[in-house]
Amino acid sequence: MEKTKKQLSLKIIPLGGLGEVGRNMMILEWQGKILIIDMGFRMPEEDMPGVDYIIPNISYLKGREKNILGVVFTHGHYDHIGAVPYLIEKIGYPPLFASPLARGIILRRQEDFPIKRKLEIKSIRNGSIIKLGPFGVEFFRQNHNIPDNFGLFIQTPIGNLVHTSDFKFDSSPVNDLPTDFKKLNRISLQKILLLMSDSTGAEEEGHSFSESLISKNLEEIFKKAKGRIIAATFASLINRIQQIIILSEKYGRKVAIEGYSMRTNVEISRNLGYLKIKKGTLINTKYIEKLPDSKITVLCTGAQGEGQAVLMRIATKEHPLLRLKGGDSVIFSSSVIPGNERTVQILKDGLYRQKAEVFHYRMMDIHAGGHAQREELKKMIKIMRPKFFFPIHGQLSMMVANANLAKSQGIPERNIILAENGQIIILNRKEAFVQNKTVPSNYVMVDGLGVGDVGEVVLRDRKTLAKDGMFVIVAVVDRQTGRVRGSPDIISRGFVYLRESKELLAATRKKVISIVNQTAGSDGVVNWTYVKDEVRNKIGQFLYTKTQRRPMILPVIIEV
Amino acid sequence: MEKTKKQLSLKIIPLGGLGEVGRNMMILEWQGKILIIDMGFRMPEEDMPGVDYIIPNISYLKGREKNILGVVFTHGHYDHIGAVPYLIEKIGYPPLFASPLARGIILRRQEDFPIKRKLEIKSIRNGSIIKLGPFGVEFFRQNHNIPDNFGLFIQTPIGNLVHTSDFKFDSSPVNDLPTDFKKLNRISLQKILLLMSDSTGAEEEGHSFSESLISKNLEEIFKKAKGRIIAATFASLINRIQQIIILSEKYGRKVAIEGYSMRTNVEISRNLGYLKIKKGTLINTKYIEKLPDSKITVLCTGAQGEGQAVLMRIATKEHPLLRLKGGDSVIFSSSVIPGNERTVQILKDGLYRQKAEVFHYRMMDIHAGGHAQREELKKMIKIMRPKFFFPIHGQLSMMVANANLAKSQGIPERNIILAENGQIIILNRKEAFVQNKTVPSNYVMVDGLGVGDVGEVVLRDRKTLAKDGMFVIVAVVDRQTGRVRGSPDIISRGFVYLRESKELLAATRKKVISIVNQTAGSDGVVNWTYVKDEVRNKIGQFLYTKTQRRPMILPVIIEV
Repeated sequence: MEKTKKQLSLKIIPLGGLGEVGRNMMILEWQGKILIIDMGFRMPEEDMPGVDYIIPNISYLKGREKNILGVVFTHGHYDHIGAVPYLIEKIGYPPLFASPLARGIILRRQEDFPIKRKLEIKSIRNGSIIKLGPFGVEFFRQNHNIPDNFGLFIQTPIGNLVHTSDFKFDSSPVNDLPTDFKKLNRISLQKILLLMSDSTGAEEEGHSFSESLISKNLEEIFKKAKGRIIAATFASLINRIQQIIILSEKYGRKVAIEGYSMRTNVEISRNLGYLKIKKGTLINTKYIEKLPDSKITVLCTGAQGEGQAVLMRIATKEHPLLRLKGGDSVIFSSSVIPGNERTVQILKDGLYRQKAEVFHYRMMDIHAGGHAQREELKKMIKIMRPKFFFPIHGQLSMMVANANLAKSQGIPERNIILAENGQIIILNRKEAFVQNKTVPSNYVMVDGLGVGDVGEVVLRDRKTLAKDGMFVIVAVVDRQTGRVRGSPDIISRGFVYLRESKELLAATRKKVISIVNQTAGSDGVVNWTYVKDEVRNKIGQFLYTKTQRRPMILPVIIEV
Repeated sequence: MEKTKKQLSLKIIPLGGLGEVGRNMMILEWQGKILIIDMGFRMPEEDMPGVDYIIPNISYLKGREKNILGVVFTHGHYDHIGAVPYLIEKIGYPPLFASPLARGIILRRQEDFPIKRKLEIKSIRNGSIIKLGPFGVEFFRQNHNIPDNFGLFIQTPIGNLVHTSDFKFDSSPVNDLPTDFKKLNRISLQKILLLMSDSTGAEEEGHSFSESLISKNLEEIFKKAKGRIIAATFASLINRIQQIIILSEKYGRKVAIEGYSMRTNVEISRNLGYLKIKKGTLINTKYIEKLPDSKITVLCTGAQGEGQAVLMRIATKEHPLLRLKGGDSVIFSSSVIPGNERTVQILKDGLYRQKAEVFHYRMMDIHAGGHAQREELKKMIKIMRPKFFFPIHGQLSMMVANANLAKSQGIPERNIILAENGQIIILNRKEAFVQNKTVPSNYVMVDGLGVGDVGEVVLRDRKTLAKDGMFVIVAVVDRQTGRVRGSPDIISRGFVYLRESKELLAATRKKVISIVNQTAGSDGVVNWTYVKDEVRNKIGQFLYTKTQRRPMILPVIIEV
């Protein structure tokens, strides 16, 4: 590494979470010693059929496992912890640090994986300070929509860094203390060289809503509802879950929790004291019929229109216990993740069709209200007065918006770092810049048991198959004569409805026979690759002319 | 049909456009005589890979072709005219009525189809009255975002109907006259039995933006922009195109039009006098390099992130002539269609990555601002004071919102018709109700040259193929011995990366041999269906255990 004192710099390498929402993972490296912040996953894009998750690419850490001092987690959301089961073994089980809640969620999730070693995670709390080689990390409380979310104050040999984590400022949160501005100010007194700040809300004007304002809105629905209330949200929005439980208790409703992840998270949070539920509030769904409708709240997953989650199964009448009826009020109490709008609309229409009243407040529709918006982001910059500013977490458009906010707060443009995943940021007291070389940061896809084995080729094939299906042609060829024996077999799926396409298939078979007989000929050595290419191209062209579709064509030739 | 005077009723049958956005088509039927309003298509959902469009199901019209008096088109948007090329022959070329612009667009589009007969379309204008059997139809101007949009005042033997078409109230439109409230009031004086009103904007508070306000916002960008302006919008938003041309002329910019559909629409609209472009304003894209950046506007398609449209090709550096650079301003001047949010975000990030400034006003983000919002919808009800109210056009949630607006305006709930596609609404002077029986209204999918041949089976196969790919096993079996000859062929795509899965394939081959040898045996008659089922099930299970993926398994057994 760099040897002369003058050149000593900190390397910052975002492996995920920049230019995207989710998959957060960042490396800080000082003279080869590595500190990792978060290990999250994200959901696949529409054009990645069959993919379960996308996780960070950790090629850069290969061979550097021994230099990893530890991983600190900011909070227990999957976009910050979800990659742990896939990656922790590969990076050699370094020391892990998380809040009791995040720790509980990570450990509970490990149980779903056949992992060789039980994880050890050290609990940290607000104000905890840990020393990891050249790094001193102090955890400070930041409001979000899950309890125990921590920003990081990181002391390094070249100066102090602040990593905001996901955050919002909330003067009247639910299930949490208000933002401790005194503490933030105290931190800033120590001179901040670099502020790394959450950009997710940087395109949203004004201030995020306080959780207590959201509670007030929810309460309006509770006041008026005469029938059952079915409230859908993310299983990870512990504070929203708490709000709905508090309101149910206030209005004399029992709460049935539906959905595996919801039940799991409620259990973990309650056991660790993060969720307050009175004795007798929870009820098993099978007993709700015994109570009047006005005494029932169902708290469930599926506000994104996920096919297998509870709310969709209610809408499609596939839920074993719950059927909607007139008088039911359904509340969508979480934002719609971009890309899910159509599914959610179809879900909502399904609920309307069953005469339920549906509540879906626009005001809750800003990434679940968990992220600082423009005024808060400016305030954070004002408080920290950093020399350098680095927008993190979010799409590029959000990071650009955050960078522009910093400019408006007087940070000179040359001191603002706009970087993307895999870029190496060099930081010292005097300067911050992005190196030309990059480390691998492309998507690593998880599909079933496979991690990283689904790549461009497999995805491209899946998309081709999805668009126009496939068309397998099996021709048996006589080795002696070089001619096709009998009629070729055709197996096609997703292309045309076979029963109604007999003519097309007959014409195709005829064409296959003539192509093979012509190209194979009978003069000894046959280039079967050429024969297959001919079948693929000519039959492809033929089918396109007839249908204007391009199924994937797979010729199989069997010599007998 | 009904014979006694007492029972005489009008049948209204929506074949599309209710519970969805697009695919508008409605039937009015009086004693067997049929009037059709619009014939539109819509875009497929995400879970319909390979499908180009969805069109209305016209089974109900089969055998009734001779009773069709005519088709009236409200305006020239594809969700109102797009199904014409697929359906017009099937319904026997009835008389067609459209504004000159809609007529021009319909006729131009026909040229792309191998249609046997040239269409004859009668031009209608504001105030035109046509008499079709028992129906008298008067066309009245309604503001939208395309010129020549007409609401319909329909006289029938049981009373007067108003069909709003897509509409908004605009006191200062661009390229159009302001809403003629006097005319609307005059219509209402004739006593309206039924109002059928556009619901698309019924969930949006307040009033839609005037086109001139949108112009003002666009002008802010024109004022400040120092480099080129690249403005992307729908090819069908003729008024937005006009705005951008007016502003370009005002600010001394030449306009290059990019994109086939954009060029076609500009040509049609200009020829018919709907688009005013000064001589010398338009410029061929290949010459823009010869002018200073500040003198250039590029008007193009692709604001939805469509893969093949101009803007995406600019973003991915695939456009033959246009490359972005710092100083360029890119304007998204149309709403994001629900479901396209992710694609648009990825597109925007791509533009930011190339240092362009990106403008995407939220205020333009309400279905292109073309639809009446809550205050306008209330006003329309107030003006028409109909006895019965029927919300049309839009998702069910929008129609429910529109119905609730009508209730708030004093229309009794029993006089509000909430219906879905395929339902039959019976209307007479006294009552309006939805019949129990329905007519077919399920999706008819267009894929390439096929209309309606892609159904549930093909789509399900496509989705299975997309998720985990396919796995074809070809085993050659000796007819004498009933045993597999050699090693079975495996062709797999979209499942695993084959080159890295040699072990898995070898194990699978071995398993196939053993399954076939066991089940086929050597005692004469073999049930090959059973053998294939065994291969499919057991190999499916085996592959799932190894990968937790479920490719489509297709066994082929060849006896030799």
